[in-house]
Amino acid sequence: MAPLRILVAPSGFKESLGPEDAAACIEQGIRRVAGPSEAFVCKMPVHDGGEGFCRAVVSAHRGRLVHADVTGPVRQPVASHYGIIGDTTAVLDMAAAAGLRLVPRDGRDPTRTTSYGVGQLMKLALDQGCSKIIVGCGDSGTTDAGAAQTGEVVIEAVCNTSNLLCGDRGVARVYGPQKGATPAQVELLSQAMDSFSRAASLSLGRDISQAPGSGASGGLGAGLLVLGASLRGRTAAIDEYFGLGKVLAQPWDLVFTAEGSLDAQSAAGKMTSEVARRATTATRKRTSGGGGGGRARGTTQVVALAGSIGDGAERMYGTGVSAYASILDGPLTLEDAMARTGELLTGAAERTMRMVLVGAALGARADLGRVATAPICQVGMPSAAAASSSVVAVTQMSA
Amino acid sequence: MAPLRILVAPSGFKESLGPEDAAACIEQGIRRVAGPSEAFVCKMPVHDGGEGFCRAVVSAHRGRLVHADVTGPVRQPVASHYGIIGDTTAVLDMAAAAGLRLVPRDGRDPTRTTSYGVGQLMKLALDQGCSKIIVGCGDSGTTDAGAAQTGEVVIEAVCNTSNLLCGDRGVARVYGPQKGATPAQVELLSQAMDSFSRAASLSLGRDISQAPGSGASGGLGAGLLVLGASLRGRTAAIDEYFGLGKVLAQPWDLVFTAEGSLDAQSAAGKMTSEVARRATTATRKRTSGGGGGGRARGTTQVVALAGSIGDGAERMYGTGVSAYASILDGPLTLEDAMARTGELLTGAAERTMRMVLVGAALGARADLGRVATAPICQVGMPSAAAASSSVVAVTQMSA
Repeated sequence: MAPLRILVAPSGFKESLGPEDAAACIEQGIRRVAGPSEAFVCKMPVHDGGEGFCRAVVSAHRGRLVHADVTGPVRQPVASHYGIIGDTTAVLDMAAAAGLRLVPRDGRDPTRTTSYGVGQLMKLALDQGCSKIIVGCGDSGTTDAGAAQTGEVVIEAVCNTSNLLCGDRGVARVYGPQKGATPAQVELLSQAMDSFSRAASLSLGRDISQAPGSGASGGLGAGLLVLGASLRGRTAAIDEYFGLGKVLAQPWDLVFTAEGSLDAQSAAGKMTSEVARRATTATRKRTSGGGGGGRARGTTQVVALAGSIGDGAERMYGTGVSAYASILDGPLTLEDAMARTGELLTGAAERTMRMVLVGAALGARADLGRVATAPICQVGMPSAAAASSSVVAVTQMSA
Repeated sequence: MAPLRILVAPSGFKESLGPEDAAACIEQGIRRVAGPSEAFVCKMPVHDGGEGFCRAVVSAHRGRLVHADVTGPVRQPVASHYGIIGDTTAVLDMAAAAGLRLVPRDGRDPTRTTSYGVGQLMKLALDQGCSKIIVGCGDSGTTDAGAAQTGEVVIEAVCNTSNLLCGDRGVARVYGPQKGATPAQVELLSQAMDSFSRAASLSLGRDISQAPGSGASGGLGAGLLVLGASLRGRTAAIDEYFGLGKVLAQPWDLVFTAEGSLDAQSAAGKMTSEVARRATTATRKRTSGGGGGGRARGTTQVVALAGSIGDGAERMYGTGVSAYASILDGPLTLEDAMARTGELLTGAAERTMRMVLVGAALGARADLGRVATAPICQVGMPSAAAASSSVVAVTQMSA
């Protein structure tokens, strides 16, 4: 078989492994099985606007990183940073100033955490003469509708546009609990978002309670709307800043993606499903297009690795993912699993690659097309048949 | 592709799932992905002489099961059983009278547990007029060298012949800890085995301290030797009683095996490695033989599923296993994993089957043999290359 063309395009594993490290681990696992003559491996870490977004954009655009001390989400001093790309464009991720990781586990009370530091970073960028600010939204530890922001500038928020400020699927209800809110606090926060929405909608002259992305990063999206920001979907932004679309359009044989948890939410808008959808869409375009294409080329196969496989994960099959696996290698607490994520991911990538090669060996066997259908499983030992509660007929090979 | 010929040949998952149930779960997982026209599935639960051995032999040979109350390993009354096959052959597994499962978790002290009930079962079989007794050894909860046995009869012990009575790799040291022995108790038990060995060797006129199988089931093997038993390797016995060898000799495309824990011990003599070794040996015989064979037939691929993947599991690759996977789907305690073993195994079989089919789709692609080698991964977006810490050249497809 000619070398497999493999794209490694993982998201990060929240609070334990960034996308770059995840990609490196997966590559390492693949390389334990397939050398350069068996597989070409290209890494494309996938950022979603969350933690690490600023550093990744700076790296991709050869910009510079500016370190700054700001007020953290529990009002502690935090060593944060923003980036400058081109001459006057600043980029930051809200997680670097108000991310969940910066909220101590025993202090996760989103009725008290603040995104004040995000405003400070924006003000610092303005003081540097920046005329545009790109704000990555994701991995936030706050639910304060970005109430602390101020300034005048072109602002672009990179966010999950399916996150809404208010209502049954509003940010307080969907994300409050994972930030540490009790059910009562979820109600309180939900009411606070409603109040903020009414005031902001009045000032803006339009209803923002259900504006796409208004609920991003605990309502930071809505706060930025008040400042005149445009809320941009992550996919388009990631295409522009990282060239993800062009990479996914290449004729990959196999794409590895990954994230912390595969569940119903994953299929509904996380980057793993986006990667799968676009990798397989690109295939269909290539195979249905004229010229050098044609059906023989086959489709790109997408596999996903995850720390845990939760309810509704099977919906991933509808996005273009053909198979997924957990990275766990045995009974383990969440805490221990998070401490060993890198090692587990490397091992899982290796095991997955071996499993794929098992299939490749079977798929490559021309003789499987020449199999006769006479049953042979009744192998003459009555005991064998009896011990097996339901022995199904198996075909005999042709001579 | 013609239907895959799949053999499902798992061991049991100790203390949570027997081989029959394990096979049913794996079949169910496969069937979620591949229908009868895509795969023929044959189940062959693999017994190793441990728990369930008696019932399985009785079922395979259409014998009858005899229920009997005996003294359990902590001297409690235990509802046990033995079987009768043919006219005068009895079969029993020591685990049904003195298995680890019968020892409460808070009472696992192998300096006190007894295999007395095994002797009772043997005596009951003799009273029924049996002239031969087959004793399955495995999953024992005791380390008493079967000191309680008595009787006169042809005895065949089905055991792992690599288990020895004494020495550094003796039964007390290797298995004592997992039966609950403290380090001090391991020493005590080891000395007790030495004493028993000296006395027994004197009486038998030969040294049994290192006799193959003497250490089986906490030294029950040695105890049976004193009664004139022959200690028979599990593989030959399983072939005779279940026809495993004939089943494995069939031209399977894919074999699923499984066990509770894959580790260095697995490769050294557990039934999973035996299944893998023989399935792939059978392949080689078929492919190298004359007649209708030939290389095109390819090799049988063996995959293994396990509750946990421990140190040294990679040695399984040397036995014929091509790939393995954990059944875990996320962080979970051992207790919770054991309560959910069936469900987890079914899910893992499904995921494994999907992963194999990903590979099959890749392997079946004829165009992979027509790939040119001009690099294309530098896709024109400098950012894409920069964001990825090591972008490896990828080949472009020929037109």
